[in-house]
Amino acid sequence: MSDKVPELSIIGLTGLPEIRQGDDLGALIIEAVGSLGLTFRPGDILIVTQKVVSKAEGRVISLRDVTPSPLANSSAAFLHKDARLVELILREAKRIVRMDRGIVLAETRHGFTCANAGIDRSNLPDQDAAALLPLDPDGSAKAIRGRILSLCQVEVAVLISDTFGRPWRDGLTNVCIGVSGLIPIRDYNEVGDDFGRRLQATIIAVADELAAAGGLVMGKTERIPAVLVRGYPYSKGEGRASMLLRPAEQDLFR
Amino acid sequence: MSDKVPELSIIGLTGLPEIRQGDDLGALIIEAVGSLGLTFRPGDILIVTQKVVSKAEGRVISLRDVTPSPLANSSAAFLHKDARLVELILREAKRIVRMDRGIVLAETRHGFTCANAGIDRSNLPDQDAAALLPLDPDGSAKAIRGRILSLCQVEVAVLISDTFGRPWRDGLTNVCIGVSGLIPIRDYNEVGDDFGRRLQATIIAVADELAAAGGLVMGKTERIPAVLVRGYPYSKGEGRASMLLRPAEQDLFR
Repeated sequence: MSDKVPELSIIGLTGLPEIRQGDDLGALIIEAVGSLGLTFRPGDILIVTQKVVSKAEGRVISLRDVTPSPLANSSAAFLHKDARLVELILREAKRIVRMDRGIVLAETRHGFTCANAGIDRSNLPDQDAAALLPLDPDGSAKAIRGRILSLCQVEVAVLISDTFGRPWRDGLTNVCIGVSGLIPIRDYNEVGDDFGRRLQATIIAVADELAAAGGLVMGKTERIPAVLVRGYPYSKGEGRASMLLRPAEQDLFR
Repeated sequence: MSDKVPELSIIGLTGLPEIRQGDDLGALIIEAVGSLGLTFRPGDILIVTQKVVSKAEGRVISLRDVTPSPLANSSAAFLHKDARLVELILREAKRIVRMDRGIVLAETRHGFTCANAGIDRSNLPDQDAAALLPLDPDGSAKAIRGRILSLCQVEVAVLISDTFGRPWRDGLTNVCIGVSGLIPIRDYNEVGDDFGRRLQATIIAVADELAAAGGLVMGKTERIPAVLVRGYPYSKGEGRASMLLRPAEQDLFR
């Protein structure tokens, strides 16, 4: 194949152990990369699923320790949900967007609008546990990136991903909730199309497309909690996941 | 690298000519693949951007031929849009979801909810032209797939993609609007997680993740209107893009 053909590859990082609170996730990922016979290269993008980040950061809560408030109890009855889970959702939420048909759609303190304020109960050894989103996913990404820089002397970008639903379309897709070392949006308004017309409304959420691409290899169980994207020419810089959030005044669905 | 490492690659198909009405898009893509020194392999997924499909199928309309209705004229004044474009949007729409702040969000006759009923004006040689969505994007995918099967004797899956916005998150992402040869969603409810818990709400929109992955290589100009995804183990079958649409009764944002 010609060297000129644009090609991107997504490599699943298998072989990570079950992650526990306090684990050095960056070092464990570096180990997994090495044991696959790979090394990080400048320009690589590492995508790590939120669940292992939350585990390493101690954001897994036992529902046995949660006492529901009166609002959590009444909402849970209406929603047919576990009241302790609803209590956690209310605690994690900055704003409830919808509470209907068994669904709590909430805006998290980070500004993400998602089901259950991002709390989920899959892939946890304790059947009574729930994983909350990391407190600062950009910080989580930055910490992993820092470990790779200091232990491997390689500049990579790191994304933290989670699977979110969306209105109108069925099914979840993997999106970006934390970023370090990469500008998560690309603005084609400055580029123009092939015929000199300025492209309108063509800000592309490249970090979400990267997360979605990673999701294809991660699957939904935890056997592949991280992937390496190689060959994507991204804009370096101090991006933040909040750059992927639509300003409230431009949003028709609040 | 070990053969056991899951790896997916996305290859940009450069070298396609400017597409015109009546072009045999399948044959032109086969030619482009060959001129890159590649051949289709069983299990490949070909993703083709809507714009070239619309061009080949004659779905490009000159605004000079469009006479706005009274509703299009009054809406256009309110939205600060070209009344002829608004007229086309109203014609393409089955239902208007929102008309506010310069945005017409409409449900198309296919059932897609998107800005401008999917009409856009970028990457068209005629500055007064607008491209409508294909009438039957699943059929468009099937036709291209059929050409590859008959000319190359290889079974591939074909997706048609377009870039859509979404509430709450800024920027567009590439999504799937037409499919042939692949089941576009994957239901993990039947799988269970690594600890035996049934995964709730874990239907993954794999065709949208594939389209997003393709979008990374396509970019937003038309120099790469198609990509090949290699190494993704998909479920074969007669999928339809409507499988990616949330049933109205489950949607909180109509």
